[in-house]
Amino acid sequence: MVSRRKPSRSFASDNNAGVHPRVLRALERANVGHVVAYGDDLYTESAVGRFREQLGDDIEVFFVFSGTGANVLGLKAMTQPYHAVICAETAHINVDECGAPEKFTGCKLLTVPTTDGKLRAEDIKPLLHGIGVEHHVQPRIISISQATEMGTVYRPEEIKTLADFAHQRNLLLHVDGARLANAAVGLKARLRELTTDVGVDVLSFGGTKNGLMYGEAVVFFNRNLAADFKFIRKQGSHLASKMRFISVQFEALLTNDLWKKNAAHANRMAQILAQELAKIRPIEITQKVEANGVFAIVPQRYVPLLQKEYFFYVWNEAMSEVRLMTSFDTTEEDIQRFVRLVKKTVK
Amino acid sequence: MVSRRKPSRSFASDNNAGVHPRVLRALERANVGHVVAYGDDLYTESAVGRFREQLGDDIEVFFVFSGTGANVLGLKAMTQPYHAVICAETAHINVDECGAPEKFTGCKLLTVPTTDGKLRAEDIKPLLHGIGVEHHVQPRIISISQATEMGTVYRPEEIKTLADFAHQRNLLLHVDGARLANAAVGLKARLRELTTDVGVDVLSFGGTKNGLMYGEAVVFFNRNLAADFKFIRKQGSHLASKMRFISVQFEALLTNDLWKKNAAHANRMAQILAQELAKIRPIEITQKVEANGVFAIVPQRYVPLLQKEYFFYVWNEAMSEVRLMTSFDTTEEDIQRFVRLVKKTVK
Amino acid sequence: MVSRRKPSRSFASDNNAGVHPRVLRALERANVGHVVAYGDDLYTESAVGRFREQLGDDIEVFFVFSGTGANVLGLKAMTQPYHAVICAETAHINVDECGAPEKFTGCKLLTVPTTDGKLRAEDIKPLLHGIGVEHHVQPRIISISQATEMGTVYRPEEIKTLADFAHQRNLLLHVDGARLANAAVGLKARLRELTTDVGVDVLSFGGTKNGLMYGEAVVFFNRNLAADFKFIRKQGSHLASKMRFISVQFEALLTNDLWKKNAAHANRMAQILAQELAKIRPIEITQKVEANGVFAIVPQRYVPLLQKEYFFYVWNEAMSEVRLMTSFDTTEEDIQRFVRLVKKTVK
Amino acid sequence: MVSRRKPSRSFASDNNAGVHPRVLRALERANVGHVVAYGDDLYTESAVGRFREQLGDDIEVFFVFSGTGANVLGLKAMTQPYHAVICAETAHINVDECGAPEKFTGCKLLTVPTTDGKLRAEDIKPLLHGIGVEHHVQPRIISISQATEMGTVYRPEEIKTLADFAHQRNLLLHVDGARLANAAVGLKARLRELTTDVGVDVLSFGGTKNGLMYGEAVVFFNRNLAADFKFIRKQGSHLASKMRFISVQFEALLTNDLWKKNAAHANRMAQILAQELAKIRPIEITQKVEANGVFAIVPQRYVPLLQKEYFFYVWNEAMSEVRLMTSFDTTEEDIQRFVRLVKKTVK
Repeated sequence: MVSRRKPSRSFASDNNAGVHPRVLRALERANVGHVVAYGDDLYTESAVGRFREQLGDDIEVFFVFSGTGANVLGLKAMTQPYHAVICAETAHINVDECGAPEKFTGCKLLTVPTTDGKLRAEDIKPLLHGIGVEHHVQPRIISISQATEMGTVYRPEEIKTLADFAHQRNLLLHVDGARLANAAVGLKARLRELTTDVGVDVLSFGGTKNGLMYGEAVVFFNRNLAADFKFIRKQGSHLASKMRFISVQFEALLTNDLWKKNAAHANRMAQILAQELAKIRPIEITQKVEANGVFAIVPQRYVPLLQKEYFFYVWNEAMSEVRLMTSFDTTEEDIQRFVRLVKKTVK
Repeated sequence: MVSRRKPSRSFASDNNAGVHPRVLRALERANVGHVVAYGDDLYTESAVGRFREQLGDDIEVFFVFSGTGANVLGLKAMTQPYHAVICAETAHINVDECGAPEKFTGCKLLTVPTTDGKLRAEDIKPLLHGIGVEHHVQPRIISISQATEMGTVYRPEEIKTLADFAHQRNLLLHVDGARLANAAVGLKARLRELTTDVGVDVLSFGGTKNGLMYGEAVVFFNRNLAADFKFIRKQGSHLASKMRFISVQFEALLTNDLWKKNAAHANRMAQILAQELAKIRPIEITQKVEANGVFAIVPQRYVPLLQKEYFFYVWNEAMSEVRLMTSFDTTEEDIQRFVRLVKKTVK
Repeated sequence: MVSRRKPSRSFASDNNAGVHPRVLRALERANVGHVVAYGDDLYTESAVGRFREQLGDDIEVFFVFSGTGANVLGLKAMTQPYHAVICAETAHINVDECGAPEKFTGCKLLTVPTTDGKLRAEDIKPLLHGIGVEHHVQPRIISISQATEMGTVYRPEEIKTLADFAHQRNLLLHVDGARLANAAVGLKARLRELTTDVGVDVLSFGGTKNGLMYGEAVVFFNRNLAADFKFIRKQGSHLASKMRFISVQFEALLTNDLWKKNAAHANRMAQILAQELAKIRPIEITQKVEANGVFAIVPQRYVPLLQKEYFFYVWNEAMSEVRLMTSFDTTEEDIQRFVRLVKKTVK
Repeated sequence: MVSRRKPSRSFASDNNAGVHPRVLRALERANVGHVVAYGDDLYTESAVGRFREQLGDDIEVFFVFSGTGANVLGLKAMTQPYHAVICAETAHINVDECGAPEKFTGCKLLTVPTTDGKLRAEDIKPLLHGIGVEHHVQPRIISISQATEMGTVYRPEEIKTLADFAHQRNLLLHVDGARLANAAVGLKARLRELTTDVGVDVLSFGGTKNGLMYGEAVVFFNRNLAADFKFIRKQGSHLASKMRFISVQFEALLTNDLWKKNAAHANRMAQILAQELAKIRPIEITQKVEANGVFAIVPQRYVPLLQKEYFFYVWNEAMSEVRLMTSFDTTEEDIQRFVRLVKKTVK
């Protein structure tokens, strides 16, 4: 692994990046005077207003500290402990949250194996048995990641199909949108076309991976589900006292399309990276590059050599498949240097 | 209540203040390049080093987002669900965390009524019955707040007495130190004299109320208790991805005694405020002013008049007792203006 | 303590008694052939019918194994984890269930000190603050024990007052009726006069302490609350596979007034016991004897001497107050022998 | 489905049977006098002694009400909430307990698809990644069912291999032995050869499915794990007040080999049933018949016709595979009548 001692560039995750300068300036600007704690302030009101501009007036928005917090608390608002949450086997809630959903909601996760990280109605149907039978957990949520953990995206009509499928069966649709911005840019879609307009019930809207310092939003399109969310957030230890500092970050992100610019840049970097790697034998790109992640098979013997210089994760050891993430601050120079290193290494 | 629309000063809570300029500059300085996420970085290593300078080498330190998070996760590391946590009736964990401790740990809180927010061994003894009897929750933790929610403090020997009392009975001592800095300054004590040296097992070390933007630390003096804490933190949704930005804040706070300067200022403001108010009939100061809180009886008819200009909370409606908190950025001018308003109002 | 080796009689608890012969015969009669498991059987249908005869048609009834199970699962059906349950400090759910309510529901219990084990609206009012404020658990349940753990009872109008008080404030009334039969007999009231007719929402109806081998019932007067209870019961590990054997016990208990006869006998024994003890100086009866429990101060030095021959519990060590429970199978001979022993001992 | 109105025989589950006469007589015999509640009695001491005769002195035994209770509480004693439990996809804890393990332990279940319900070390290895990494739940338990839900059994050496595999990796081996007796008889093994001697850590020992009215045992071969189990049992609402009535049932079951006789009979009935069905075209037996379950493909159109007369479950709708369970009281006549019906129906 690359030494932590020297400055370095990373493709490990979009959360290895720092904070966008505009976001940092917003934090500075908000640092004046006394402001009521816990969100009853004008900064928060304004940030929620920005969300309503993007997603429509008929929503409720709550800020929390982290993506796991957003997912877990959002799911809690939608479930009782005897419910089940259906998700892809690769879902962040299933593999990367240390069992936080089970611990906090009590629910079982029912997982679907996929090749591309995307759930399809056909794959969900076999899980919908034992409905009304007390021996079995009751499926209540379909949770999708947009973009997925495999760097792929759901098109609006795919989401609508899942939402309709869910609602016809008394299920709800949850979206882990840690990278919703990247998906929207990849699809050339407005945020609401991927959420409000296609039947999403609850959304985790990612900030940290798109240039914030910290902060995620839980957005309720189904306002009834939000009725008691403030208690869930507090009991879940995710009510920020100096809330204004989350709020102004989101305000900055949703102003002058910063969210879009950041995501577009990251996505473009991923495209370039994938194109360049695809030219190098024997590297093989394994997933469509639809957001800001590139998945590629890199023969096992080269991996540690590359990791000496760049952080990145091996995604699938058996296949020697690696994941390379780009971010708002990835530069073309980063990519060219990395690509040169790969070329040199595999020769 | 004062309008949210106009700039204002507040005595509602030390978390109505903003961020100390040195902390903000530290955030800016840390915003360079890519850094491994989740705490395996030099900023975090360095910040933990600062804690060791203050509290000794034989500790483990973990950063979390919020004070409720620090308390709840620290308690989880010390308990099984059939344990009980003994605390003052006024403890933050008992009244201000929306049941987060019960929800996350499963434990019952056993509370002791106090006049000054301070637990004493004599008050705890009656709760230590049914030990080993399966019908009853098993007392396992004594949790104290330092400074207390009433603005009072425990002297080192008082803490040591409680720690010894606890350890002789197979209990552990937890300290909610959201305002530990204020207590230390009030007592002219070093931080370790209130913790390491007197037998504390686990500490929530407060940052946000002493000038940070966000971030608290869970400090383990009993390292065995920390063995699995990283899993508890992650499962509790409190693992920050861009951890460096919590770490550098603590680094700043623990550099050049910023923690002490901030707390000393807040405490001094509380002293002045209390002295001035004490001169005004019929205002009556109800608690010793040992940290940065002032408790005072203000006849009920004056309260809304004062609240039109300043945020503050009525602590005890029956007594018309109000709580006034000062912070690192409270100014003498703030106090003089408030005192003038009080004088004018009560005339 | 009395040796476990020799046959003995006990005033420790009504659950030290065995099974009423009619209940045992019912178990034998039900032991024929194959019956669908988990309650979809005629025995269960019939037992539920008996409950409806007593309590009205508009109820839902579910059988569980134990009293703690009945309380915890009933409360779960009425609450979310950020709710609070208000109860007397002496309530079984507070002191005798090893924190099961907190663990399973996530709720905090808010307790009221009482002298006689009975909640009064006046005592509850001070707990109803912070409503709608996310920092505080939200009171949702008033839970009373009928008869109380102190052997006292609520008159129908007292229950109605509490139910009205609750419903006016969006709270619900839960009754731990482990000894409801004893209360009804003590009050010369029908079961429905203490429940259906006075606004109870959910009831734990006790069987084990009134002559069953095992089995308690959760009765919902508010059927909406029962909608998902079958899942709660199963997830709470309280769905009996051979359900018929709980059902027939309740069928027997609710047939030909067996519940009433058993309770009436136990209550009468308690009356006699109390009358006899009251004549003995320096024994002092401390609570009204309204059900099947007798509380009495017995000077500390006599207690171990008596306990050599009879099981019973010291209720309050400071006062040397003991609790003596009678049951459906306590005999007058048991009491006369015990009274003689007391007289001999205190002389 | 067969009418509940008429007496009938069932192959739905071994828990549709009643209580073995010797068990019922034991219940009657125990119904004398007063006995200390909650297990501190001679009946319980004696029953635990019977377990020690079978399984060795170095065990701890606790009785609970139900099989789900035994599994969930046993797993709780072995885990922290950030642990994972590895089991077969078909495991009772995974599909038939309404998420009780997740709710009570907080743990995630990691499942392995199998054809015969049996876990193998090779299938477990891929789940043992991310050890020590806080993002991922930490595998801690391998849980097997003996006999499996598919009617198959683990040979002693297979269990030993799993136990060794587990212990080498700091995992523990849990056995859901709801049908351990059937497995032992099928393997002509003593109970300890399947447990004590091969490294099992914690066992759910089934009673209800082998002729008891109610009652299961949690057996700890690793006594350290039992240290606090009494609190877990009480907090889990599974401490029986009139414990003697569970204890005497187990005493009867473990006296004069009743457990073995009951299981041997059920197994023999399953053998006969399978042999007879195998002769009928187009019925096809799909699993080895090693305990008391028979799995068979019955063409879909015949299923409802058979279910009019006999309870049984369709196990796999896609394959039209049904499950037929025999019990201690299944008669050869039951089987012959059922086989005749099948023959008539498929003609």
